[in-house]
Amino acid sequence: MYTTAEMNFQTEAEFVRWLRTLAPPRPSQVRMGIGDDAALVRVTPGRDLILTSDLSIESVHFTTRLHPPGSIGHRALARSLSDIAAMGGVPRFALVSVAFPRTTSRAWIEKFYRGVFDLAKRYGVEVVGGDTSIVRRSIMIDVTLAGEVVRGRGLLRSGARPGDQIFVSGWLGQSARGLEILKRRIRGRKSGNDTSEASAAIKAHLFPSPRCELGKWLERQGIPTAMMDISDGLSTDLTRLCEASGVGAKIYAERIPGPSGVPPKHSLKLALHGGEDYELLFTVPKRRIARLPRSHRGIPLRCIGEVCPSRGVLLVEEDGSQSTLAPAGYDHFSKALHM
Amino acid sequence: MYTTAEMNFQTEAEFVRWLRTLAPPRPSQVRMGIGDDAALVRVTPGRDLILTSDLSIESVHFTTRLHPPGSIGHRALARSLSDIAAMGGVPRFALVSVAFPRTTSRAWIEKFYRGVFDLAKRYGVEVVGGDTSIVRRSIMIDVTLAGEVVRGRGLLRSGARPGDQIFVSGWLGQSARGLEILKRRIRGRKSGNDTSEASAAIKAHLFPSPRCELGKWLERQGIPTAMMDISDGLSTDLTRLCEASGVGAKIYAERIPGPSGVPPKHSLKLALHGGEDYELLFTVPKRRIARLPRSHRGIPLRCIGEVCPSRGVLLVEEDGSQSTLAPAGYDHFSKALHM
Repeated sequence: MYTTAEMNFQTEAEFVRWLRTLAPPRPSQVRMGIGDDAALVRVTPGRDLILTSDLSIESVHFTTRLHPPGSIGHRALARSLSDIAAMGGVPRFALVSVAFPRTTSRAWIEKFYRGVFDLAKRYGVEVVGGDTSIVRRSIMIDVTLAGEVVRGRGLLRSGARPGDQIFVSGWLGQSARGLEILKRRIRGRKSGNDTSEASAAIKAHLFPSPRCELGKWLERQGIPTAMMDISDGLSTDLTRLCEASGVGAKIYAERIPGPSGVPPKHSLKLALHGGEDYELLFTVPKRRIARLPRSHRGIPLRCIGEVCPSRGVLLVEEDGSQSTLAPAGYDHFSKALHM
Repeated sequence: MYTTAEMNFQTEAEFVRWLRTLAPPRPSQVRMGIGDDAALVRVTPGRDLILTSDLSIESVHFTTRLHPPGSIGHRALARSLSDIAAMGGVPRFALVSVAFPRTTSRAWIEKFYRGVFDLAKRYGVEVVGGDTSIVRRSIMIDVTLAGEVVRGRGLLRSGARPGDQIFVSGWLGQSARGLEILKRRIRGRKSGNDTSEASAAIKAHLFPSPRCELGKWLERQGIPTAMMDISDGLSTDLTRLCEASGVGAKIYAERIPGPSGVPPKHSLKLALHGGEDYELLFTVPKRRIARLPRSHRGIPLRCIGEVCPSRGVLLVEEDGSQSTLAPAGYDHFSKALHM
C-alpha cells in the first residue's frame, strides 16, 4: 500500500506522513492503519463481512470543471457507503486508492482527502489504507469499503417475490437535476439566483447522503425481502433487482418522487433514468407493510408499485396507459458527462 | 460494484455475466460474490482482518508492450498477496477494479482476468467483486485483498530491535533483471537464445510468486520481530522497516543474493535497488535463530546483516569498506518503465 506517490511530494514516505496528519486518530478496532504493508482490523464476532469497491474516473464519473475536489472525494466514498447500506450493513473500514497526474497540486489533493475523511467520520468509517500512484492523464479513484452485517442477514437483490410492494427512499432524479444545473452554469447560461430547489439538487449531486441509517434499520426490522441502492437510475436498477429475483415489476408514474421546479415529463425522466441518487430500492411483502412508517428520520419511504410474476418492468402512466420501461439509467448519465 | 462496464459489451449486466463464467465456483465462505451491491463473506472467528489495496497503472507499473495481459493480471494480484504474506496472514477474498480504454479487446480482458483468477486459485483466494469502468487512456487496476491472521499476531514493520539479525527470502534483483532482458528484446538487441538464468529472471518479473506459505509459517513459528515484503527494492524497503522500528541496520554485500549471469557490481545494484521481488524481509532475535531453517519449501532464508541502534542503513562491501545505503529502489524502477 502507498508505494508510488510522487506529485509534489519528494518521497512516498513524505506523502504517507502527510496523509496520516490529515486522517483522524484511530479507534481501538484498528491495530494498524495507514503506513504498514496492510491494515489490521477487527470484525465484530457473529457478523458477516461486506466488501465493495467502486471506481471514480475523471471524465466518466466526474470532471474537475464540474466537481470541486472535496465533492470528488465525498462522492467516491459515498458510492461504496451506499452499497453497504443496500445490504443492510454498517460501514467500518475504507481503503482509498488514487492515481493523480503529476501536475495535481497539493492543495487539490488535500481538499480531495478532506472530502473523503469528513464523510468517513460522519458515518463512523475509518480510512485504514489504500494506495497512490502517478498517472499520465485522468484522475482515477478506487474506494474499497468493508462493512458488517449480522450473520446471515445481509440483504440481497434476489429475494423479491410476486406480490411484494416496491419502495424507494427519499427523492429520485435530484442528482441528475443538480448536474443539469451545474452544466448550464458552466456554459454561462445561469438565469438569476438559485432557487432552494436548485440548491438542494446541486447538493444532492455534489454531496449525496447515502442511506446507511435507513438500510441498517430496515435490516434490523426484518422488513425487506430484497434491497439495492439506486446508483444508475431507477429504470436500470429496478430491472437488475427483478432479474436477480427472477420476477417482473409494475410501477406507477404518479408515485415516483421526481424533482420539482421542472416540467412533469422532464421530472419523471430524471427520476426514472438519472443516476447517482443513492436512495434505497426495496421490496416488502404485504403482511409487513403495516410495520413500515411513511418516513424514517425525515426520509420519505414511498410505495411506487408491486412485484409481478412475469418478467420485465411496466410503467403505468397517469392516464392508465402502460409501457415497458427499458433500463436507460447508465447510458444517460454516461453521455451527460461527455460535454 | 460493476456499474460502468462498456467496451465490447453491450451492457454492464452482460459484462458481469461473462465475468462470472470466468470465475471459478464459489466456496462456502462466500454467501454472495460478483453480482450484487457488495460481496458477503465470512471471517474465521478469532482472526484479525488484513486489508490491502494495490494500484497497477499502465506506463507506471506495466506497459502493454512489455507485459502480456495474463502477466498484468497476475502481477496486480501478486502485489497484494505479498502484502498479506508480509503480515504473516492468509489471503482470502479479492476485489478487482479495472478501468480499460474503450478499444481494449475482449480477448485481452479475458487473458487479464485469467491471470488474476489462476493466481487467485493457486493461493486459495476467492475473487468476490470489484468494479469496472471505461477510461480515456491508461489502463488502471486496483486490487484489494482481505486476509486473516490469528488475533493479535499480525507481523508489523515496527518490531525490529537492535541485535536482531536481518533475513531475506529467496533471490533479489531477479525481477529487475528480467525487466532488463525484456526491454533489450523489445529494442531488438536479443543475442542468442535465453539462458536458464534469463528465463528464470523473466519469469520472476512476469509471474512472481509471493511468499504466502513462508509468511504464514514464520508467523505460526513466532520467529520474526518485524516483517515486510520487498516490493520497491531492498534499499528502500529496509530503510522503511528501520524507520518504522526506530532503528538502523548494517548489511553485507557478499551475503545479498543477487542475480547470476551479470557482472558482480551490476548484480549487487539490481539486488539492492531492483523493485518487485516480492520476497520477505524479516528480523529475528539471536535466541530464535536456531529455530530458523536454511530454507523453507525450497526458498532459501539468508541472513544479510543485523539491526543496529543508530539510524541509517550501512552497506559493508567485500573489502570491508562501509557506506551509507540510500533508498534508491522506487525511483530506479519508475525510470525503468519510461522507455
